[in-house]
Amino acid sequence: MVEAAAAYRNPGPESLAGFLERAAEMIVAIGEDLILTCARETALSVDRLTGERARTVNQLKMFAALVREGSWIDARIDKANPDRKPAPKPDLRRMLTPLGPVTVFCASNFPLAFSVAGGDTASALAAGCPVVVKPHPGHPKTSTLVATSIIKAAEECRMPAGAFSMIEEASIQIGLDLVRHPLIKAVGFTGSTKGGRALFDAANARPEPIPVFAEMGSLNPLFVLPAALENRWEQIATGLTASVSLGTGQFCTKPGLIIAQDSPVLDRFAARLGEQLSQIPPGRMLTDAISKRFEESISMVQNFIQQKGNAYLLATDSKTFRADDALQQEIFGPATLLVRCGSTDDLIELASELEGQLTATIHAEPQESALAQSLVNELREKAGRIVWNGYPTGVEVAPAMHHGGPYPATTDSRFTSVGTAAIQRFAKPICYQNFPHDLLPEELRNNNARKIWRLVNGTLSKEDILPE
Amino acid sequence: MVEAAAAYRNPGPESLAGFLERAAEMIVAIGEDLILTCARETALSVDRLTGERARTVNQLKMFAALVREGSWIDARIDKANPDRKPAPKPDLRRMLTPLGPVTVFCASNFPLAFSVAGGDTASALAAGCPVVVKPHPGHPKTSTLVATSIIKAAEECRMPAGAFSMIEEASIQIGLDLVRHPLIKAVGFTGSTKGGRALFDAANARPEPIPVFAEMGSLNPLFVLPAALENRWEQIATGLTASVSLGTGQFCTKPGLIIAQDSPVLDRFAARLGEQLSQIPPGRMLTDAISKRFEESISMVQNFIQQKGNAYLLATDSKTFRADDALQQEIFGPATLLVRCGSTDDLIELASELEGQLTATIHAEPQESALAQSLVNELREKAGRIVWNGYPTGVEVAPAMHHGGPYPATTDSRFTSVGTAAIQRFAKPICYQNFPHDLLPEELRNNNARKIWRLVNGTLSKEDILPE
Repeated sequence: MVEAAAAYRNPGPESLAGFLERAAEMIVAIGEDLILTCARETALSVDRLTGERARTVNQLKMFAALVREGSWIDARIDKANPDRKPAPKPDLRRMLTPLGPVTVFCASNFPLAFSVAGGDTASALAAGCPVVVKPHPGHPKTSTLVATSIIKAAEECRMPAGAFSMIEEASIQIGLDLVRHPLIKAVGFTGSTKGGRALFDAANARPEPIPVFAEMGSLNPLFVLPAALENRWEQIATGLTASVSLGTGQFCTKPGLIIAQDSPVLDRFAARLGEQLSQIPPGRMLTDAISKRFEESISMVQNFIQQKGNAYLLATDSKTFRADDALQQEIFGPATLLVRCGSTDDLIELASELEGQLTATIHAEPQESALAQSLVNELREKAGRIVWNGYPTGVEVAPAMHHGGPYPATTDSRFTSVGTAAIQRFAKPICYQNFPHDLLPEELRNNNARKIWRLVNGTLSKEDILPE
Repeated sequence: MVEAAAAYRNPGPESLAGFLERAAEMIVAIGEDLILTCARETALSVDRLTGERARTVNQLKMFAALVREGSWIDARIDKANPDRKPAPKPDLRRMLTPLGPVTVFCASNFPLAFSVAGGDTASALAAGCPVVVKPHPGHPKTSTLVATSIIKAAEECRMPAGAFSMIEEASIQIGLDLVRHPLIKAVGFTGSTKGGRALFDAANARPEPIPVFAEMGSLNPLFVLPAALENRWEQIATGLTASVSLGTGQFCTKPGLIIAQDSPVLDRFAARLGEQLSQIPPGRMLTDAISKRFEESISMVQNFIQQKGNAYLLATDSKTFRADDALQQEIFGPATLLVRCGSTDDLIELASELEGQLTATIHAEPQESALAQSLVNELREKAGRIVWNGYPTGVEVAPAMHHGGPYPATTDSRFTSVGTAAIQRFAKPICYQNFPHDLLPEELRNNNARKIWRLVNGTLSKEDILPE
């Protein structure tokens, strides 16, 4: 299977875009069976899965449009100057090319959008890389339905053999074997810190190391500054209840840490938040294993339970939080931890001590802008996305999205797994020096037939280049 | 020292650009003393070092211009749509920000252009990262002269403390300690595969792994196709002699492997090349250690010496080359290996079996374009830069340059260490969601005061954004 992927040759942008669009259509064509199968396997609601299917299909179409437009390859042309002294200047033409076969490890919590036909698969295929998927054991029938659709689309669109495949077995050992396979050139992963780090370590221990883009854990701290707490404590408690309990708390961007200055208003806020969290409707978790892990996580911090129910509010002070490593671990499920700070200085200091995060959120009022700026200065070093007066759940799929962050949120803070920029993970540049025109890729010829943006002698342009 | 670097705050593009330009001026202001000191320490000629100083200074100025122009930060803005169903679309604004303190390991063979004020330092500083340099032990006085100039420029330009520093000691252990220091966020390195891999392994074994951009070894294969050999064998022998012996063979892009189909013309070519190489003027190597390593490398392959003198021609057939690992190792110094293939199929197959390379070169005539295309298809997977009818030495500093390649040429094939794109190694994206305008960085506000290129709702533009 990996050998077939390695023998694959990128069929060019028009074919690739057509394939991605056809895969999207075929996934829609499965119809209700996909949604119902997935709902049975994951306990997620039909509504949620219908929305997730739309997101999955839109991602495939977004990458098809990106590939068709073409400028993502970052074409650069520096024209020759044969008369330059002391040495002539060569003609240099550079663009991005596919990195090679990619292994995608599917997520448990997005059985469609971060799974077999999810963002990693779509962006790797769009980059021109063949993909070998390792499905998540939590939703095997869903995975097979989706994989079958992609394979059918590949056949219909006459993709070269090896463009897409899925391994049957979903064991950890098979996953490691894939990462160690000499023909695999990159890895996409969404899951636990432990799992992501194991793949990262295996990939870097190879004779030829390869990049691993693992999106792992995150506490997603949410800071409530004093005036915002004073003015909007009820509204924030309601917003947080919804965000923490969304999808039974099984989102990588769930706000798992609330940080605020201690005050009588904070007591009222905590009481309201705890009460509302305890009263959310009961939810079944994705798998029994995840459910069991959630119970274990809660038992590790049971001394800090302020209110229990269908979702948990934990609470502590900043000193205890700093001293107790167990409080700093992500709890995957419906729970969040309130940390009471002694002062706003303490709150800023706590921000500066955090590990890497996917997101951080600030609730603030206009009059506390200076304090907010100090907080932003710290959070820029800690989180990939900073949300203002909102909630981190709900990751927009768009060009300006950055879904990533410093370790341990991901293994590479320079790349996103959501949005069009995700394609950049799976490509490397190649430079052609003094090449004859007929051997250059179409995108680097003088005639800019695809009308893409190119950096010509340092200036962005869509123009053709006039021969000397 | 590392603590001071970590406390550094990026002073903004105008200050940074001014600092880089002032550093360039201060290096020039050292005058003849820099060139003569460096010549004494490295045995490189005054002419060569005068050229290398110009390259170093131009690199600093190039990055200053890049920072001042500003579009490199890849600003992206997706405007909000509060009316979107089922959920409102947030306002997302994303740009690149500095990765954090960078350690730069200096090269032996470019005591100015890949050393204290070389491409790694210039690109990291330009990205807004503070730099801690580990000098190369081969040219300590040169390193101190240059470091002193940069520090003076930093003081004059009122850079924040920690912007630039150089450690005094150049031991391997100090280097590893730097890579393991928790406040260091990235590493640039130019040197041996063994050294680069050791730093890469140390960086990835950290609790928080960090990227290592190590530019290591490369054979830089040069393919001569039959018609080119027939028509231009004398010219190619002369060109190769100059390229192989340039700087006493101490370039990372030295063509160390010549691959051609066996024929009577190849015999004539080999005889001529061997004769010319043996007659180049004697050259002193950079250090005694490098000289000793060169002698050791030659002794490992002494059975294959076709002609010896001041530079060596080694020769073998493709079968022996494949079987003998010693022949596949880079020899740093004035030597190159000719591999005779049984057929052009054998030549293409050999190309497909190569390890990662910084460069590959093809000599071909227009009538053998189909064969050349087959070769290009293989070399695209193997090398960062493909040179046509030329020689790989002489790495142009330009936007379209890619000086990188698959492992073991570098530890990360996605990035270049030469040219403007080198800045991308030292930056990570950050996304601001629904931020108030006064807390956004200048580059992401509606008013595009710096007139940079921005991707606004998916379209590149220099325009201001009209508020809703």
